[in-house]
Amino acid sequence: MKKSILKFKRKPKICASYSVVGHMEADGPLGKQFDEYCLDDKFGKESWEKAESEMQRRALCGAIKKSGLIDTELDVLLAGDLLNQCIGSNYALSNFDTGFLGLYGACSTCSEGLLIGASLFSGGIIDTCATVTSSHYCASERQFRFPLEYGGQRTPTAQWTTTGAGAFILSDNGDVEICEGLVGKVIDKGISDINNMGAAMAPAAINTLKRYFLESEHSPEDFDLIITGDLGYEGSEILKELLLDEGIDIRKNHVDCGLMIFDRDRQDVHAGGSGCGCSAVVMSASIIPNLASGVLKNVLFLGTGALMSPMSLSQGGTIPSVAHLLHISHAGGK
Amino acid sequence: MKKSILKFKRKPKICASYSVVGHMEADGPLGKQFDEYCLDDKFGKESWEKAESEMQRRALCGAIKKSGLIDTELDVLLAGDLLNQCIGSNYALSNFDTGFLGLYGACSTCSEGLLIGASLFSGGIIDTCATVTSSHYCASERQFRFPLEYGGQRTPTAQWTTTGAGAFILSDNGDVEICEGLVGKVIDKGISDINNMGAAMAPAAINTLKRYFLESEHSPEDFDLIITGDLGYEGSEILKELLLDEGIDIRKNHVDCGLMIFDRDRQDVHAGGSGCGCSAVVMSASIIPNLASGVLKNVLFLGTGALMSPMSLSQGGTIPSVAHLLHISHAGGK
Repeated sequence: MKKSILKFKRKPKICASYSVVGHMEADGPLGKQFDEYCLDDKFGKESWEKAESEMQRRALCGAIKKSGLIDTELDVLLAGDLLNQCIGSNYALSNFDTGFLGLYGACSTCSEGLLIGASLFSGGIIDTCATVTSSHYCASERQFRFPLEYGGQRTPTAQWTTTGAGAFILSDNGDVEICEGLVGKVIDKGISDINNMGAAMAPAAINTLKRYFLESEHSPEDFDLIITGDLGYEGSEILKELLLDEGIDIRKNHVDCGLMIFDRDRQDVHAGGSGCGCSAVVMSASIIPNLASGVLKNVLFLGTGALMSPMSLSQGGTIPSVAHLLHISHAGGK
Repeated sequence: MKKSILKFKRKPKICASYSVVGHMEADGPLGKQFDEYCLDDKFGKESWEKAESEMQRRALCGAIKKSGLIDTELDVLLAGDLLNQCIGSNYALSNFDTGFLGLYGACSTCSEGLLIGASLFSGGIIDTCATVTSSHYCASERQFRFPLEYGGQRTPTAQWTTTGAGAFILSDNGDVEICEGLVGKVIDKGISDINNMGAAMAPAAINTLKRYFLESEHSPEDFDLIITGDLGYEGSEILKELLLDEGIDIRKNHVDCGLMIFDRDRQDVHAGGSGCGCSAVVMSASIIPNLASGVLKNVLFLGTGALMSPMSLSQGGTIPSVAHLLHISHAGGK
């Protein structure tokens, strides 16, 4: 139980970020804030899987360019995605002449990359790094559920995997800093419905938030926003209700990237967005700029991941989940 | 190019390790050195995938017990495996009440976990952690190539995925220390034969070793052993020959875990062993004990990973690879 919260003495700054999304996301409420979008689901490539690599490549190139660095100045790349063997990242990053650490945390991977990157920076192991994560609706549906051509009905609790990639550059320069981190535990409450990831992931987010507020000097009202990655409508309601039962009220400042990225009234996404790319592009396009400008002073970001597998579900398995936490601040105004 | 070699100022010790293997591995040259083996491919579970989780659980429990710690004293668990969505790790680690960072580096994951763990320890972010990785022959063949029932012919360059899991505990206590690390780059030389991973991975190992000897003050003869994870016969020959062309001679002290774990004359494994579990159990059962006793003073360990995907290969893709390096020493005798 010791040292659960990682307090970064040397706090890394998020000096640049870049978001690349598909047409659904560009048509959503945050559409104008993304750096780049493409009307073609395949991003000019021959397959959705190759499109996902292309999004990662563009996101990383964009973030590096914004940062003013060149890619060989980066000490390490941290990346992952939802595709089997993380091929989105593997192919994308073979274009860069920098060491690569591959991560798998399902939809929590954006937060996992930032957390490991921040830890390596804080410990003086590296001076700069990039993190990049992605997901693609068509590739994910084919891999995890049904090929799109099958035309399967989606249930009300189903979420819509975000087509997008987000990249972040950490260095000692900038107005947004990562102050603390908390590594999530694997939580498995027995949910086995692949179309209800919100319910599977909410207990992991609850576990992490409860531990954070128990161990830290902070309470929910210290944060402008408590941001979850992709709990969607179902998972967000579970999170708020069960935390309230524990005496932790986050109803006023909770937002979910999966609920921010799409307009559920106008877009047919059921319970909201999901995917490795969801929190990455929302953080990059909306949250980080507001932290940089000082509109937001302090936020908690919980990347939530449903560690589900079609193979294990076909064998009667459940969906273990994980949620990693980051405390991110406007650099001048805590 | 700056800071490529991570020099650990606060050097973590490998204070305990534990290996769990299947019957083929128990019947091999290192058979008596493994901590635990099981004659049943399913380790008492209903599927090979669940068996892989069970191996990870047993390996981690065994290592924790050997270390004298209790699991809640660990600051973080770093784990990964070859199964889609890393379900070997996800299910195994839901049994432990400790934060979990999921990794995907294919067969390089053992070295990736030790490298990240050592970095977090060196930077003072954590004081202790566990790493665990696994692979299972039957589950891997079904996922990556053909179901065993198909009875497909294996080519001469094919390798035999190790059934095994290895766990390591890092802390400030013990006789084996991790001195340096070097993060591998994604290298893709265009190999696309899923039955010739050695050829795909050798260029990644060459890239990492060349960079290490270029940047460090060391030459190959400074090391008792230069250990690659699972290049097998084919990949090992390529590695030694191409490095010799570059003026780096590792012929005298190179060994490969994939060649150590099986007796190729007696066991039908073609080019040798492979898999996340291969380097983990060989390091745990053979190399680490010899480093602890001082029989070995200094070794380089390169975990090699073929980041291959049946999906991308079916789309005409190649096999990108990565190799992470660790310099590990007898704590008293450099």
